Amino acid sequence: MTDIAEQHTAAHRFDADIATERAETDPAANRWSAEIRPGWRSIGGAPNGGYLLSLALAAAGRTLPGQEPFTATAHFLRPAELGRADLDVDVVRTGRVKSTLEVRLSQAGKERVRVLTTMGARPPAAGAAQSLAAAAAAAPAIPRPDRCPSAPPGIAGPDADLAERFEYRIAGESRWLRGTTGEQARLEGWIRFADGREPDLAALPLFADAFPPSVYEVVELALVPTLELTVHPRRRPAPGWIQVRFETRLVADGMLEEDGMLWDSKGDLVAMSRQLALLVPLG
Amino acid sequence: MTDIAEQHTAAHRFDADIATERAETDPAANRWSAEIRPGWRSIGGAPNGGYLLSLALAAAGRTLPGQEPFTATAHFLRPAELGRADLDVDVVRTGRVKSTLEVRLSQAGKERVRVLTTMGARPPAAGAAQSLAAAAAAAPAIPRPDRCPSAPPGIAGPDADLAERFEYRIAGESRWLRGTTGEQARLEGWIRFADGREPDLAALPLFADAFPPSVYEVVELALVPTLELTVHPRRRPAPGWIQVRFETRLVADGMLEEDGMLWDSKGDLVAMSRQLALLVPLG
Repeated sequence: MTDIAEQHTAAHRFDADIATERAETDPAANRWSAEIRPGWRSIGGAPNGGYLLSLALAAAGRTLPGQEPFTATAHFLRPAELGRADLDVDVVRTGRVKSTLEVRLSQAGKERVRVLTTMGARPPAAGAAQSLAAAAAAAPAIPRPDRCPSAPPGIAGPDADLAERFEYRIAGESRWLRGTTGEQARLEGWIRFADGREPDLAALPLFADAFPPSVYEVVELALVPTLELTVHPRRRPAPGWIQVRFETRLVADGMLEEDGMLWDSKGDLVAMSRQLALLVPLG
Repeated sequence: MTDIAEQHTAAHRFDADIATERAETDPAANRWSAEIRPGWRSIGGAPNGGYLLSLALAAAGRTLPGQEPFTATAHFLRPAELGRADLDVDVVRTGRVKSTLEVRLSQAGKERVRVLTTMGARPPAAGAAQSLAAAAAAAPAIPRPDRCPSAPPGIAGPDADLAERFEYRIAGESRWLRGTTGEQARLEGWIRFADGREPDLAALPLFADAFPPSVYEVVELALVPTLELTVHPRRRPAPGWIQVRFETRLVADGMLEEDGMLWDSKGDLVAMSRQLALLVPLG
């Protein structure tokens, strides 16, 4: 009990809300408990997929201390709910360079999210990255955050309280500034925690899913439930704002992809994400 | 035994080599057997990751007939080998629109690959796709296959017999034509089966991993073992050549990503892929 209590006193909401404690079951089993609290809900009121992925990875990290995710994929089976969640971690394979773990997030005995992740020991600081194609990995030139408008209230949609956890800045053309949809399903801007917590590897999966879907730039009313989200946290981010670009290129057979690229305040690419979602038109 | 025998007589190697038969164990268990044969080996001599993913998805498809993958992620735990493989399929969740399955590919009692996939019933023909950002999803303009040089023999590297299964065409600048590395880790061209088999959803994961790594465009000697490969088969491809673009944008902390985009002969985007791999320099 002590460790979850300690984590509860964490100065920042995100750290408190991905805290886990070892479940009082077979001590050989890697079962962790967590409490899904208000404050991370997306459109429709269900807890955000990026938050659930961060929570699952926190349980994986407690199972293999010192290991941090290289790549993580979540398949969303059923909506999660507020309240207690159980996280069962299977260590699939451990190795010198990398280890693979599976996490099953369940509530009331029903699995909600299944995660596969390959983790390893990361260098303590971001090393000199070898940028093979500097132009392709470089942050696009957009106005600095203090020159971009804040996102309007309610950007995250009805029933979504997620947006209160962040400060958002929107760069360039956007429905959220213009009020009408446009022609390109791309959203660019900046994000940081509203309570001053700095970005780190643990927060990158959350940031990768914290903007409204970029398809809302071109589609007036739709639900966009995520089937699968994969995040590659690539480097430790520097403190400060995270610059983002989210883009959807194709809707086919009722599904769309959304690619995300995240850069830190130094302009270094720190994460890449891709999700596949259903597009369910409304109205 | 009959069904694997029938599949063995398949006219095309790929179909024969992703054939599975129900293992003679508990009939309630979804355990399938397959034979990993020569002809699908990548650099270093291990069976290709895209082939193993296609094989795992074949077992998933036999477990839930009529369902085809929307998204599939493979984590590579240990190299696979030639010979018998066991494929254990867990149906994680079935639903009206989508079902999620896990496949564990093992040999000699050791798990080699773990796959998570979300599948569903696909429209029988590619519908009119809603291309939200036509420019972003459109096939780049490259010369038609008959105007591109064939890839040189040995393009797939030492010990790799995979390249014999395909015809490759290389478009534009490439180390494989020039003989020396360049500045951009991007490879464009065309691919089709050497034995005339037409592309379909089942072959897209294989095509997504059948070119040499695009990082070889800029790095002279290196091993590039895949940690994780995710493929989104987006639409049924039309018959004919598949146009490809593979690109690596960043090497950081000893790892690189490779993104793939695949278009069919009509120029429609049919699959997107992303993998995370280690970069192990040699020499």
